[in-house]
Amino acid sequence: MSKFSQEIEVSGHLIDSSILTKIFDKIMDLKGEFNVEEIDIGTKKKDHSYARLTITGNNQGHLDEILKTVYREGAVSKVQKEIQLKKSSKDFVMPDNFYSTTNNHTQVFLKGKWISVENMMMDKCIVVKGNKAFCVPVRDVKKGDQIIVGEAGIKITPPERPREGVNVFEFMGSSSSSERPTQHIAKQVADDIYNTKKKGGKIVIVGGPAIVHTGADDSVSELIRSGYIDGVLAGNALAVHDIEYATLGTSLGMNVKDATLAYHGHRNHMDTINAVFKAGSIAKMVKSKKLTKGIMYECVKNNVPFVLAGSIRDDGPLPDVITDVAEAQRQYKKVLKDVDMVIMISTMLHSIATGNMLPASVKVIVVDISQPTVTKLMDRGTWQALGIVSDVGAFLPMVAQQIKKRSK
Amino acid sequence: MSKFSQEIEVSGHLIDSSILTKIFDKIMDLKGEFNVEEIDIGTKKKDHSYARLTITGNNQGHLDEILKTVYREGAVSKVQKEIQLKKSSKDFVMPDNFYSTTNNHTQVFLKGKWISVENMMMDKCIVVKGNKAFCVPVRDVKKGDQIIVGEAGIKITPPERPREGVNVFEFMGSSSSSERPTQHIAKQVADDIYNTKKKGGKIVIVGGPAIVHTGADDSVSELIRSGYIDGVLAGNALAVHDIEYATLGTSLGMNVKDATLAYHGHRNHMDTINAVFKAGSIAKMVKSKKLTKGIMYECVKNNVPFVLAGSIRDDGPLPDVITDVAEAQRQYKKVLKDVDMVIMISTMLHSIATGNMLPASVKVIVVDISQPTVTKLMDRGTWQALGIVSDVGAFLPMVAQQIKKRSK
Amino acid sequence: MSKFSQEIEVSGHLIDSSILTKIFDKIMDLKGEFNVEEIDIGTKKKDHSYARLTITGNNQGHLDEILKTVYREGAVSKVQKEIQLKKSSKDFVMPDNFYSTTNNHTQVFLKGKWISVENMMMDKCIVVKGNKAFCVPVRDVKKGDQIIVGEAGIKITPPERPREGVNVFEFMGSSSSSERPTQHIAKQVADDIYNTKKKGGKIVIVGGPAIVHTGADDSVSELIRSGYIDGVLAGNALAVHDIEYATLGTSLGMNVKDATLAYHGHRNHMDTINAVFKAGSIAKMVKSKKLTKGIMYECVKNNVPFVLAGSIRDDGPLPDVITDVAEAQRQYKKVLKDVDMVIMISTMLHSIATGNMLPASVKVIVVDISQPTVTKLMDRGTWQALGIVSDVGAFLPMVAQQIKKRSK
Amino acid sequence: MSKFSQEIEVSGHLIDSSILTKIFDKIMDLKGEFNVEEIDIGTKKKDHSYARLTITGNNQGHLDEILKTVYREGAVSKVQKEIQLKKSSKDFVMPDNFYSTTNNHTQVFLKGKWISVENMMMDKCIVVKGNKAFCVPVRDVKKGDQIIVGEAGIKITPPERPREGVNVFEFMGSSSSSERPTQHIAKQVADDIYNTKKKGGKIVIVGGPAIVHTGADDSVSELIRSGYIDGVLAGNALAVHDIEYATLGTSLGMNVKDATLAYHGHRNHMDTINAVFKAGSIAKMVKSKKLTKGIMYECVKNNVPFVLAGSIRDDGPLPDVITDVAEAQRQYKKVLKDVDMVIMISTMLHSIATGNMLPASVKVIVVDISQPTVTKLMDRGTWQALGIVSDVGAFLPMVAQQIKKRSK
Repeated sequence: MSKFSQEIEVSGHLIDSSILTKIFDKIMDLKGEFNVEEIDIGTKKKDHSYARLTITGNNQGHLDEILKTVYREGAVSKVQKEIQLKKSSKDFVMPDNFYSTTNNHTQVFLKGKWISVENMMMDKCIVVKGNKAFCVPVRDVKKGDQIIVGEAGIKITPPERPREGVNVFEFMGSSSSSERPTQHIAKQVADDIYNTKKKGGKIVIVGGPAIVHTGADDSVSELIRSGYIDGVLAGNALAVHDIEYATLGTSLGMNVKDATLAYHGHRNHMDTINAVFKAGSIAKMVKSKKLTKGIMYECVKNNVPFVLAGSIRDDGPLPDVITDVAEAQRQYKKVLKDVDMVIMISTMLHSIATGNMLPASVKVIVVDISQPTVTKLMDRGTWQALGIVSDVGAFLPMVAQQIKKRSK
Repeated sequence: MSKFSQEIEVSGHLIDSSILTKIFDKIMDLKGEFNVEEIDIGTKKKDHSYARLTITGNNQGHLDEILKTVYREGAVSKVQKEIQLKKSSKDFVMPDNFYSTTNNHTQVFLKGKWISVENMMMDKCIVVKGNKAFCVPVRDVKKGDQIIVGEAGIKITPPERPREGVNVFEFMGSSSSSERPTQHIAKQVADDIYNTKKKGGKIVIVGGPAIVHTGADDSVSELIRSGYIDGVLAGNALAVHDIEYATLGTSLGMNVKDATLAYHGHRNHMDTINAVFKAGSIAKMVKSKKLTKGIMYECVKNNVPFVLAGSIRDDGPLPDVITDVAEAQRQYKKVLKDVDMVIMISTMLHSIATGNMLPASVKVIVVDISQPTVTKLMDRGTWQALGIVSDVGAFLPMVAQQIKKRSK
Repeated sequence: MSKFSQEIEVSGHLIDSSILTKIFDKIMDLKGEFNVEEIDIGTKKKDHSYARLTITGNNQGHLDEILKTVYREGAVSKVQKEIQLKKSSKDFVMPDNFYSTTNNHTQVFLKGKWISVENMMMDKCIVVKGNKAFCVPVRDVKKGDQIIVGEAGIKITPPERPREGVNVFEFMGSSSSSERPTQHIAKQVADDIYNTKKKGGKIVIVGGPAIVHTGADDSVSELIRSGYIDGVLAGNALAVHDIEYATLGTSLGMNVKDATLAYHGHRNHMDTINAVFKAGSIAKMVKSKKLTKGIMYECVKNNVPFVLAGSIRDDGPLPDVITDVAEAQRQYKKVLKDVDMVIMISTMLHSIATGNMLPASVKVIVVDISQPTVTKLMDRGTWQALGIVSDVGAFLPMVAQQIKKRSK
Repeated sequence: MSKFSQEIEVSGHLIDSSILTKIFDKIMDLKGEFNVEEIDIGTKKKDHSYARLTITGNNQGHLDEILKTVYREGAVSKVQKEIQLKKSSKDFVMPDNFYSTTNNHTQVFLKGKWISVENMMMDKCIVVKGNKAFCVPVRDVKKGDQIIVGEAGIKITPPERPREGVNVFEFMGSSSSSERPTQHIAKQVADDIYNTKKKGGKIVIVGGPAIVHTGADDSVSELIRSGYIDGVLAGNALAVHDIEYATLGTSLGMNVKDATLAYHGHRNHMDTINAVFKAGSIAKMVKSKKLTKGIMYECVKNNVPFVLAGSIRDDGPLPDVITDVAEAQRQYKKVLKDVDMVIMISTMLHSIATGNMLPASVKVIVVDISQPTVTKLMDRGTWQALGIVSDVGAFLPMVAQQIKKRSK
């Protein structure tokens, strides 16, 4: 064994979840060497496997880089060490060499025990307080926080691919394509929503204004009214268009009922914003019965929390919009706490934002008419997402109809 | 008036159909000069307008080029001249300076009378036989044919934009966007199909295999069975996938009914091709009851003509496929004769081909999930098309359902 | 003349800028009637035209709606009236029936004189202070502000299409397509940038992180260094990626120089954010020589103002990022004051935001690899934009090279 | 061991090429059981691995389906059997249960020896003649041909992922994205072309008309002239546009040199077609010096074979176009014989066609501005392709320039 070698071990569904493949890949990508010291492949499909490898680098730095990388794939050092901590010198500033998180389930070896990191998200640091470890974003780092540095004492468990039970994720595999039987996918998604809810799961919708333009507002409203949705994350545009549609019957100046052009269509958009400012807030519009249907209305009526994050392109924005994006991120995270399923509809901005806040174990469904949008979201780290390339205005009504059938 | 000037006149809905705008544009694009000698704008919206202009070029060649261009926009020379003819010297060869057609309604001044050119298509030549004039593609030019050269004696009438009655074209305007209320567009398209048929119109579908993959096969089959469709233009892929779905229940190896993976999915594709070859043809498969449902089946059963054009990427192709594309073009044209409405679904290749064969007066609806595909078709000359950016597997079932309601 | 009629007049390049066509269209869309009382078409191409129309509605409300609409297209009432004003009752609240602006040059009839509205943007209200009128967004409305209501006393001048001189806008027309000779478009864009600057014009870049990923960072840096750029509007991502590339040589974990994979690529992203927080700001990083090249560096060094607007998906975001989007909008507007040309590169979010703040007379060039993105921006109201569908990483270096040639 | 069990074995880079993962996947997808009897993982990265599994199905049919599937992934039955043959009963008709090929390297056990199947393509059958085996498409099957049926005696070797040496495939991984450093990818592609040629490799271009529209014609012409290209596969459109550009200087009616609009642009397209018909063929145009530059010219001059496949949307098509697609497929295959690298540029139709004819071991590079197009090609079975999402008009000149540098 070379001076610059180290033994690591890894266990789990090494073969069928491709874990071993990825570890071999990473070592070779970084031009390291490896030796398989021991391997024990489960003989049956549900059996766990175990492997022990010696990894060798050209020098200590090289070896360290390889180790860092394979640790992210689930490998652990044969000899466990305690995590190392360093204090933050200044608000918002992490120590050099801070441990940057993945969105996988992560444990840290603290005072001789493995403890799970809470509130797992990707690209954050880990702060240790007493016997607990938390995943914390830069803007929440306070001077003096104890932050994990280096890679010692950290164990990652990549999610295993779903194998049991039939759900839309298993059915579709990981690819996104527009060439799938739409009606059947809609059924599968309906099943998944229905079953998740039946088991007491939490479902959050992330949505863009195309929900309204394409005529899917009623379907989403119904899902909320029927109790399937536990939170709505959006921006100013969804709210404005939803309220314009609910109060004036138009979206982008088109009468949605009979599909004729409204007099002065775009004006309605500005009138809507003014109406909410006059009322003071969306909830007050509902209270004063100026707003009596739609997505925002159902949220207020059914106590479903919604968060509207501001963006630079907003008209207005509405008084309910959180114009400070750092604060909006905090509110998004609150709503996403312990979520089981997230449905992202036609909004790249809010979908990527939400994806960044989710542990990899949360089910994510993305519906968009543009394949590159769907692909981009997955490339940004939310690789567990199921992409559905379809027309929201046709797809969501199908899903809503299917759920209705199941609810009877 | 300069030596290099000529007077032209133009009439029709000059303002609201933008004809005058386009003529002014073209003259300026080519850096010519113009003088408006007389203009008479209809005072009411249905009135026709009239304008007389003097156009001036830098030299005779320049003037001629400008004139050629404005003639295409509907202008005519003040002084009408007879068309000029020249014989084809060789099969497939047109005389230099042959008149290259647009897809607009075209008349030629022959023996002192204006006669309409039959079988109008774009980018072809005009052959005169006796007192008739025909639009003829290169491959049908025979040695000795009398072909129109130059621009004299030709009058074009651009189609006026639809103003009366409500149909989907009026509703949507000319733009294609995915941000429209899908369910309402589906209703409008259903109305248009229903009304066109009620008036005895002829409707042809041009379709690609995504009809089957996305699960819209049943909807199209139903439209054919119910008598709404008078012809199907496609390629090998639609037929193979349709027959695979009808006989084996799969498309691209997925069981469409319960959405599970077929054993050995892709194999089914090749088995289907072999099955048709064994039967000898699609019609024989129907006759021997080996094929009992689907698009191809309904075509055979209901005597709806279909033409399958071969392409270089075909597997097989099926015995029914016309592998010679020049012959396939001739068969397409036969089916398109006197058509009133063409619905193009998820196939750029066959849609552009069909677009090239249609006079601009035919209503064209294009449904595709990709906006660039829809845009490209229009850029290729089929500018009158109405583009719908949606998911075929969700949109066509909506249309079929709406038509069913109307038929009751 | 009916009880519900009114005479309007309009002048300018009525035909070649399609103004008359649009007015006729709008009247017919709204099912009104019109009579052309007088029309005087300029006989030469540079001549202005004049038209006087009587418009008739079914009732006063109908007529008013039609009038509102045609006023937006440049028509004015034959009889001019003073504007009407009403006070804002509350901060952020406009009076009902407030006049909602277009992005066209707008004049208001105030105390018997036409005065131009300053700081023109679309979808805002107009506040009158003394003898001046200002275009003001909702969030800047203060209680007691005098706001224009109704449509009386307002005159709009739609921009005329460019006719003189050769620039890329004239060359390309209004369409966006990927099927254009890329190298020649790059030359035209270079000409336009060079000439705009030579005449003392102001040029602002709006950019997304794809500038860095695709390897165009050096080209943009050079444009700034050479003095062509007067402002950079972006978000957190462009800055982070630019600084990561400048300090660590990677973008998305790929070594840009030799195109190999960095050890621990994504980590670099977080390290970059931490480094800026440690320095305190981008300018301080430049001052302490920790940042010595790239887009942000050149901005600081050359005193080119940059504004980084926060968004919900930001990692960090950097201390320089304005996390309050309402404030970020104000800063964007400052940089955009009196701008002549805006170049938008691979960012829909910031491009739409910027487009909303620009009068229609500003030249806008949009470069993106996705055609739907380009189309969407124009649909959102920035119709004057020139869309170029190309690969930023290949296109911008071409433009930079061409400008360099001209600068010698 | 159950009645419905069978032992299989597999060897090669089982882990790093994911072969074992895929086999486990397939068994589980089909709901079979497996037991790992023996596994020997190479301890070093270049070592081969070996595994022996018992697979169990619910019944013989189930087991057979699972076996069929895993055989495709490289597994072989522990006990080798001779292939089974059956005669074709009729031209174009294969026996039921014919073995349908993959595009992987395939061997058959014939008279006690493993022999390689020649001319490997996907979705075809295998015909045995004497001691040789050939991959044969449906249309080439003759009555009496000995065709392999069932799955016995067939061994597939999936290509291993490239590990050694630096080339663009290794660099990019398998994903296609527009967010890559374009200039570096261009360098890598140039390296690959240059090195392939240096080693005496054969390179074929498959191209669409966007090569000409986007201004990349000169770059492709230069590659041919410099001897890098051994064949050009295209359709009518590329040839017509190339010759229009070469003879009239326009493409789609735009003067490519100075980017102004040609008088009567689209007319040039038809004139070009007529000119080739007058000459009789492209080669005769070159001979008579009517065609003196461009892609087609360089092919003729340098004896580089080109095949133009007809399609239903062709204008003309040119006399050189093979209008029978079955014959065109044969000619394509001839040019593709023993090819090492195929560069597909902006044509989905011809690229998918070519992909279907290639063994998986051929390097394929696809360049297109549309990501869905690139993805679709890979989904259709040409999974080994490297997708580059870029603007052809900017990318190809970069590649050509880089190759020029290397050639000096």
